[in-house]
Amino acid sequence: MRATTIHAPFDMRVADVPDPVVRNPGDAVVRVLRSCICGSDLWAYRGESARQAGQRIGHEFLGIVEETGAEVTGVGRGDLVVAPFTWSDGVCDYCREGLTTSCEHGGFWGSVGSDGGQGEAVRVPFADATLVALPAEAASDDRLLAALLTLSDVMGTGHHAALGAGARAGVTVAVVGDGAVGLCGVLAAKRLGADRIIALGRHEARTDIARRFGATDVVAERGDAAVEAVRELTRGQGAHAVVEAVGTEQSMRTAVSITRDGGAIGFVGVPHGSGTGLDLSVMFDRNIALRGGVAPVRTYIPELLPDVLDGTIDPSPVFDLTVGLEGVPDGYKAMDERTALKVMVAN
Amino acid sequence: MRATTIHAPFDMRVADVPDPVVRNPGDAVVRVLRSCICGSDLWAYRGESARQAGQRIGHEFLGIVEETGAEVTGVGRGDLVVAPFTWSDGVCDYCREGLTTSCEHGGFWGSVGSDGGQGEAVRVPFADATLVALPAEAASDDRLLAALLTLSDVMGTGHHAALGAGARAGVTVAVVGDGAVGLCGVLAAKRLGADRIIALGRHEARTDIARRFGATDVVAERGDAAVEAVRELTRGQGAHAVVEAVGTEQSMRTAVSITRDGGAIGFVGVPHGSGTGLDLSVMFDRNIALRGGVAPVRTYIPELLPDVLDGTIDPSPVFDLTVGLEGVPDGYKAMDERTALKVMVAN
Repeated sequence: MRATTIHAPFDMRVADVPDPVVRNPGDAVVRVLRSCICGSDLWAYRGESARQAGQRIGHEFLGIVEETGAEVTGVGRGDLVVAPFTWSDGVCDYCREGLTTSCEHGGFWGSVGSDGGQGEAVRVPFADATLVALPAEAASDDRLLAALLTLSDVMGTGHHAALGAGARAGVTVAVVGDGAVGLCGVLAAKRLGADRIIALGRHEARTDIARRFGATDVVAERGDAAVEAVRELTRGQGAHAVVEAVGTEQSMRTAVSITRDGGAIGFVGVPHGSGTGLDLSVMFDRNIALRGGVAPVRTYIPELLPDVLDGTIDPSPVFDLTVGLEGVPDGYKAMDERTALKVMVAN
Repeated sequence: MRATTIHAPFDMRVADVPDPVVRNPGDAVVRVLRSCICGSDLWAYRGESARQAGQRIGHEFLGIVEETGAEVTGVGRGDLVVAPFTWSDGVCDYCREGLTTSCEHGGFWGSVGSDGGQGEAVRVPFADATLVALPAEAASDDRLLAALLTLSDVMGTGHHAALGAGARAGVTVAVVGDGAVGLCGVLAAKRLGADRIIALGRHEARTDIARRFGATDVVAERGDAAVEAVRELTRGQGAHAVVEAVGTEQSMRTAVSITRDGGAIGFVGVPHGSGTGLDLSVMFDRNIALRGGVAPVRTYIPELLPDVLDGTIDPSPVFDLTVGLEGVPDGYKAMDERTALKVMVAN
C-alpha cells in the first residue's frame, strides 16, 4: 500500500510500504477514508521532534474496517469507525478511569513499528477498545466526515483543554492559539456553557472561525499588548479559564498573565519551551492552576459524538485544504507556511 | 511596645516600636497572646527574600481585642480572636469567592508599614472580615491555644495543599516536606478521608508526628531513591495526590516524579526554585495537574475551627519549642538550624 513516511526535516514522502495485516487476535485493519495533518506533526516536519528515517506519520483517521482478529467483537468488517490518536487496551487501571493516553499497553500511531494515519490502511491494536463505530450513512457525507474526523484529536483535545481550564456557565474563557486545537477549544468552551469567550489571534480567517465557534471577543495583539487587551475586557481581572493550545514559552507566558486569580490554565499545546513561560511565583501568588496534557480523546468520543451527529457542534471548518494521499507533502508545506489551517487527506 | 524587627540576614532583634492605634474605622488593635515563626520567615532570615532594615515580621498570631474602630461590629474589646496571615476586606470579588489572599485591599502582616505578629500588639485592618472570634475559655488552655494558632497559617495551608492535590477517600496521598505545613498536609489529607498517606522525611521526630497525624507510610529516602520507594508502595504508579510543601527545585522534581498519571500536585511551598523542578513535558505526557499557591486560610477557618475545638484534629504537636517575645531571635536560630520544627512565641 501507499503511506506517508518522514525521512528528514522537510522531507515527507508517500511510499510503498507493506500492507498491514492482523497480527494479534485483538487487531483490526482499517482502510482509511480520511486522515489529516496535525499541528503537532509539524514539530517532526521541522526536525524539532526526532524521527527515524522512513518512520510513518499521521495519528488522526477514520475509515472502514477491513479485517478483524478472532477476538474482536465490537466492530466488524465494513463498519465505519473513527480512531483516537492513541490506541489503548480498555482494561488497565488507567483505561478504566478514562485516562486512555496512559494505557499500560497503549501507543501512538506513527511510533516506530506502527502504522500512521496518513496512509491507505492501518493495523489497529485492541480494536474493540480503541475504535468507535460511526453511523454507516456518514460515509457519504463529506461535511460530516470532516466533522467526525476531528474526534480523533483536535475536537477532543480542545474539549480536554476547556475542561482543564474549567470552562463552564458563568465564566470568561480565553484561548491562546488560533490553530485547529485552539479553535476547537473555543467550540468546546461554548458547548460547556461559557458566557464569554476571548480568542487571541491575528489571522482573520482563523478568528472568523473562532467567532463562528462562539468567540465573543477577538484580541489581535500579542505579548504585553494582548495581556492588556484581555485585562481591559475583564475589568482588569483576567479570564477565569484559559486554554493554552500552542506550547511555546511565549504562549504559556501569555496564558499565565491573562488568567484571573484563582483561575486555571488548560494546557494542551505539546510543550516546546512552554515550561519556561510558566512563572510559578505568579501562579503561587495568584492561585492559578494548571491542568491538561495529552488528551484522552477516546474517552471523550462517546460524549462528543452525538453532538457532532446532530449538528450541535460542527468542528469541520477547521479544515481549509483537502489533498489526496499523494499530496500529503504539499499539505505539510501549506501548514508549515500557515497558508492552510488544517489539511485533510481524502483517500 | 516591643516587637520583632529584621535588620539584615540573621540579624533579628526585639525592639521598642510605636504602640499600634486604630487608624481607620474598620481597624482593631489586638494584643498578641501567641504568635509563631513560620518556615517562610526563614527565607527573610537567610536573606533569600529581601526586607528593609527594621521591617516587622511574623504573620501568625492570636490574641485579645483591645480596641476597635467605630465601624467594627463583629468583634469587640476582650474577645479572643485568631488572625489569618493576610488581612482582607471581605467584600471584593475575590473575598466573596473565598480567595481572600487576592483581596483587592488585602495585605500581609510584616509588609512595609504594617505590624507583624511577632510583637506585643497588631493593628488589624478590616477587623470584621479578617479576624475570627474564638471561645473565651480557650485562652486558659495552652494546648488548645497552640492548636488554634495553627489556623492562622500552617493548618489552613496544609488543608489548601491537600485540597489542591485532590486528597479524598479512596486515594493515596504523598507529602513532600516534613515541616509544619507538610505535617499539617498529612493531617488535612487524613481529615479529608485519604486511605493511604505517605510522608517523605528523614527526621524521625518529624515523621513520628506525621504518623500521629495519619501517615500510613514513611519514606526516608531522598531524590531518585524516594521516587523509587513511593512507586514501590503504589504498584509502580505513584500517588494520586501529592502535597509539595517546600518550594525548592528538588522538592518539586520529587513531587512531579511521584505523582500518578492523571493525579495532581497541591503546591504551597513558597517558590524558591521550584519552577525549575516542574518538568512540563512529564506533566503533559502524564496529565499531572498543579493547583495551589498562597492559601486563603481565612476562608478555611470556619470549616476547620470546629474540628480543632472538638479535638477531631489537633495540630498543636507541630510546635516543639516555645520562647518568650525576647527569645524570638533564638527561635529563628533554632528553626534555621532545624533543632526546632516550629517555634511558638508566648507573650
